[in-house]
Amino acid sequence: MVKIGVVGGGQLARMMIPAAINLGVEVRVFSESPGSSARLAVTRVGDYTNESEVVDFAREVDVLTFDHEHVPIPVLEAVRNHGVAVYPSPEALRLTHNKIDMRARLQDLGLPQPLWTVSTSAATFSQDIDAVGGFPCVAKKPVGGYDGKGVRIITALEEITDWLSEGPVLLEEKVEFVRELAQLGARSSSGEWQTWNAVQTTQVDGVCSEVLAPAPGLTESLAEKSRHIASQIASEIDVVGVLAVELFETQDGRLLVNELAMRPHNSGHVFTELAVTSQFEQHLRAVAGLPLGDTRLVSTGGVMVNLFGGIEENVLKEAMRKFPEAKIHSYQKSARPGRKAGHVVAIGEPLLPILDMCREVASTIHSGDYDA
Amino acid sequence: MVKIGVVGGGQLARMMIPAAINLGVEVRVFSESPGSSARLAVTRVGDYTNESEVVDFAREVDVLTFDHEHVPIPVLEAVRNHGVAVYPSPEALRLTHNKIDMRARLQDLGLPQPLWTVSTSAATFSQDIDAVGGFPCVAKKPVGGYDGKGVRIITALEEITDWLSEGPVLLEEKVEFVRELAQLGARSSSGEWQTWNAVQTTQVDGVCSEVLAPAPGLTESLAEKSRHIASQIASEIDVVGVLAVELFETQDGRLLVNELAMRPHNSGHVFTELAVTSQFEQHLRAVAGLPLGDTRLVSTGGVMVNLFGGIEENVLKEAMRKFPEAKIHSYQKSARPGRKAGHVVAIGEPLLPILDMCREVASTIHSGDYDA
Repeated sequence: MVKIGVVGGGQLARMMIPAAINLGVEVRVFSESPGSSARLAVTRVGDYTNESEVVDFAREVDVLTFDHEHVPIPVLEAVRNHGVAVYPSPEALRLTHNKIDMRARLQDLGLPQPLWTVSTSAATFSQDIDAVGGFPCVAKKPVGGYDGKGVRIITALEEITDWLSEGPVLLEEKVEFVRELAQLGARSSSGEWQTWNAVQTTQVDGVCSEVLAPAPGLTESLAEKSRHIASQIASEIDVVGVLAVELFETQDGRLLVNELAMRPHNSGHVFTELAVTSQFEQHLRAVAGLPLGDTRLVSTGGVMVNLFGGIEENVLKEAMRKFPEAKIHSYQKSARPGRKAGHVVAIGEPLLPILDMCREVASTIHSGDYDA
Repeated sequence: MVKIGVVGGGQLARMMIPAAINLGVEVRVFSESPGSSARLAVTRVGDYTNESEVVDFAREVDVLTFDHEHVPIPVLEAVRNHGVAVYPSPEALRLTHNKIDMRARLQDLGLPQPLWTVSTSAATFSQDIDAVGGFPCVAKKPVGGYDGKGVRIITALEEITDWLSEGPVLLEEKVEFVRELAQLGARSSSGEWQTWNAVQTTQVDGVCSEVLAPAPGLTESLAEKSRHIASQIASEIDVVGVLAVELFETQDGRLLVNELAMRPHNSGHVFTELAVTSQFEQHLRAVAGLPLGDTRLVSTGGVMVNLFGGIEENVLKEAMRKFPEAKIHSYQKSARPGRKAGHVVAIGEPLLPILDMCREVASTIHSGDYDA
């Protein structure tokens, strides 16, 4: 049986466990704490920045993968030097560590993206702003941001002088998009590549909130373009595992790459119920060198709505009782305002009443008074 | 978070784990060995006939349930006396311990079943045979049989003199059935009841081999009859959890009850992919007192084919490569001739090509030279 080590004990690692059980592979989790969301498969509690701890863990598995991108590159290189495969590779993951490197690489590949530049000082700032189409524009800290953190929409230099004093800031055109899409695919260590249908995503304060799958009304030409962009990124950057490409769809029919993730992604949770192969199963197949699974949909469409904060038992029961067709996933994390606590998926058609139902599930659960 | 204790570490306990993770409940397994199929959730290794070991395990959970029916009734009563809920209850489970008690109870309930009688000696044997319609008939040891063990088709007294010397033998009419069906449903501790579509099953040597869901061409009147039989059994016997009723469909349109199981059942594996709610999730909901989930199908139909013996990695990979749409479940049990090692499910329509494909998956995997 293939043994797959996962660094990180969050909900993504948690949701790899059912996939591993059904596939018949073993997942072992390296987690920051014994009570993490993936606690059932935690075999080591430690610090993922500590090389010897991660190497010790990795020596017991056949391949190392991740539920987050924060492991330092030298740690990953050390694991590989001990003969354990690391997927995605340190070279690929490196790009997710610095948004400026990522923009530069996508530009080298000729991929469509928003206008962007790097601002390093107040002296050149007005030129930099012109290069991204003027105010308002998007400023991003190149390192360490996620889920809306480290991102600001700015209309004046003063709004990022604190960041500029620390180092270069990525500036991007504020794209007037029609909607946001996500294109997920998976590439195996043997180079096999499979995509799912592109989905439509809604972000609230930079955090994924709702997903409609497939993206309603997406033209075949844009669907093809979306798959092509993801395919090109996966093969050129040599991604192994799930790749999620967040895209802006513009009024004039262009797709621009917003962000990337090289792991299962919030926008792909809907495929657990909606596709023959979930993103978690596909990620495990890809990194373990197993043949990839079919990504066809088992129903016409589906909806995912995130649940935040905490999930109290009595409101969860109420939601289950009122909506027996809803698949409510609870991550069993300690409650905290705004924290991703779970999600709900429902499939079928038409999508809009299903979206309404999922929103009702969320509002029922959010009405609970959890202990923050 | 509800904690559910499961006695038995086989594939049924194994497959409750993904359901538990997605639901956000905790499953703890009491297993005979640390390397059992459900090893990931094993928190205690022990002997399920040992009262103090089972009680110690049960005190750490909110409700006790089972992956098999072999726990002695006094052990279950002891658990309940310690204030832990036991579902299905000892009173209900008792019936699965003795096939004669079960027949008598079904008769009391007025449910349709094959002609049956109890033979206790050679002296009355010819009368007993007349009572079940003559030879050939089916002889069953009342206690301890499963998967075809303890069952013989007989044409002469001599074929069961060994059993008669040990005690009473159940004799049953050998029903000339058109096909075998299974009707699954689940009843929660609050009395809520939900059924899935009846499925068509094929047994080889008394072991479930193939399932088609829903049972092709089943008339609405028989489907209704099937649901009604299961519903009556569940409520009259006070089953909590999944109930599986194996049925014979006769030429003249009758349904006769063959066997019962009060737990997830091999004939229901197809619903993991085919229904909104799997039998494993529904069992956990039912015993934990959570509202039951929707049992509607997400596709027009599905097929399950069992895998026996062992599953070698190279043939598994070959099957995965050739049939990306097949969901191959490997139970990670040690290989043994004839042992249930896994199963494959595929959904869609029409069913016959899907059945052919699942059989090809099985024959690919069975071609492997596992170490027995």
